[in-house]
Amino acid sequence: MELPVIQPGELNKRPAQTPIFSKVGIVGLGLIGGSIALAARELWPAALVIGVDNKDVLETAMRLHAIDIAADDPYVLAEADLVILAAPVKQNIELLADLDDNVNQPAVVTDVGSTKRAIVDAARSLPPKFTFIGGHPLGGAAKSGLENARPDLFTGRPWLLTPSTDGGEAIVKLSAFVTALGAQPRVVDVATHDRLLAYLSHLPQLTASALMKVVGHAVGAPGLTLSGKGLADTTRLASSPPEIWRDIAATNADEIGPALDVLIAVLQDLRRDLPKGDQLSDVFTEAAEWRRTLKP
Amino acid sequence: MELPVIQPGELNKRPAQTPIFSKVGIVGLGLIGGSIALAARELWPAALVIGVDNKDVLETAMRLHAIDIAADDPYVLAEADLVILAAPVKQNIELLADLDDNVNQPAVVTDVGSTKRAIVDAARSLPPKFTFIGGHPLGGAAKSGLENARPDLFTGRPWLLTPSTDGGEAIVKLSAFVTALGAQPRVVDVATHDRLLAYLSHLPQLTASALMKVVGHAVGAPGLTLSGKGLADTTRLASSPPEIWRDIAATNADEIGPALDVLIAVLQDLRRDLPKGDQLSDVFTEAAEWRRTLKP
Repeated sequence: MELPVIQPGELNKRPAQTPIFSKVGIVGLGLIGGSIALAARELWPAALVIGVDNKDVLETAMRLHAIDIAADDPYVLAEADLVILAAPVKQNIELLADLDDNVNQPAVVTDVGSTKRAIVDAARSLPPKFTFIGGHPLGGAAKSGLENARPDLFTGRPWLLTPSTDGGEAIVKLSAFVTALGAQPRVVDVATHDRLLAYLSHLPQLTASALMKVVGHAVGAPGLTLSGKGLADTTRLASSPPEIWRDIAATNADEIGPALDVLIAVLQDLRRDLPKGDQLSDVFTEAAEWRRTLKP
Repeated sequence: MELPVIQPGELNKRPAQTPIFSKVGIVGLGLIGGSIALAARELWPAALVIGVDNKDVLETAMRLHAIDIAADDPYVLAEADLVILAAPVKQNIELLADLDDNVNQPAVVTDVGSTKRAIVDAARSLPPKFTFIGGHPLGGAAKSGLENARPDLFTGRPWLLTPSTDGGEAIVKLSAFVTALGAQPRVVDVATHDRLLAYLSHLPQLTASALMKVVGHAVGAPGLTLSGKGLADTTRLASSPPEIWRDIAATNADEIGPALDVLIAVLQDLRRDLPKGDQLSDVFTEAAEWRRTLKP
């Protein structure tokens, strides 16, 4: 797949557009939720962006001009026609249960979580006034949190959508929304999503954190002063927040588990073969070939 | 440890110095050997830089003005007063065996390999006209090979030295040589070196290659187009050349093996704990703390 080259900042130059949704409610203003809010306010001055989070985060969001309306209670979503759940996965699932109490009118509901089967299952109990479409913007930045949010975070990146019915008008509108944000919408089925992400994202994350723990524990702070770019790159993901990953692991354990088993088996093969190095040569050669297909 | 901030290019501005060694022989003109050659020629126009490698590499080295004298046979080292072995570890060890046939006068001999016990052991058989001091410049670039060599590659980076005797004048001169290259010489004992590097470098390398193989094999080229910066960072080391790493693994198997065992045990704990996530929270929290002490 060729990704189009869109320069950061290009989003800012676009003329104001007719809003696709007039009241966009975002629950959870972290890196992803905050970046959606910033982009939506720039793109559609006529739309209202409603942010739900705790009071500290809302203060930051108001200071960054990321939202029009702020509340620490989802009652403020009453008139939203798009609700984006951008909290950790299990919180998003809990929020779904209360949605009917908080949102009074028909709305498209989506999320931005890294696993999809659990929330899509939960969304089957929503009343018919809601159309739920699972969503997952890929990529993101190395650093999490609202203070690292940027309106061009999604530029040129895939945004996976997992509609559970044919979606009708809702999928068309949500696709237009994420396209306006600079992303490339792609429809995938939920099972494929969770299997793919187990390998592309969840396994690298667990590996990076495990490696950093093992190396730090073994060599200590003085030893780490001798480390170079190699260790820094390989463990960059280890800065990720535990609370997000606990939910991801729990809601995709049946896919991440087998992926971990395969990695453990390869590491065990390498370990047995260290003095000879035949297995090492095979693994390194295949790995270098795959690595060439990724960006530097 | 605070590393001094020396800007790239600063090396070029330094005035020509009296050579510390008058004839510097470098066997193996890859990233490290090539960068030493480029720096030595800039720093000491009065010294001769002698390069030994195969004919293709030597042609490139001459074109890059990295060396004064080129040959594909170590006989050209006859008058060298510093010999730097910069081939893969096992080749360096083989080269030691022939050194007395090739070098006619007293010389300081060093290497730049990532394991030290094997070559330091082998160097004990050298005749007394040679003083061997193991060496290991840390850091380096993401890409290997002479075409990525740069005279400022070592700027601000540690250069570990493992003298096997008290070293005398040789260690003073070699320290001055690597300091002139911009590096920070640090003396460590060979066993500590090999244990530290098993964790800081060898374990991350094996992990990155194993992960890239597993992910590439599982999702294939179309799946990889959906990958982001996280996978790219975590697997950057997987581009490393197998031939170098085969030798490193073989000559440090007894240290890398136990390090791999610890990592495998942590991954197995995480795997068992996926649905609950208690272990995950602990590992992620400790890993994030260690990661904060590294460069971004």
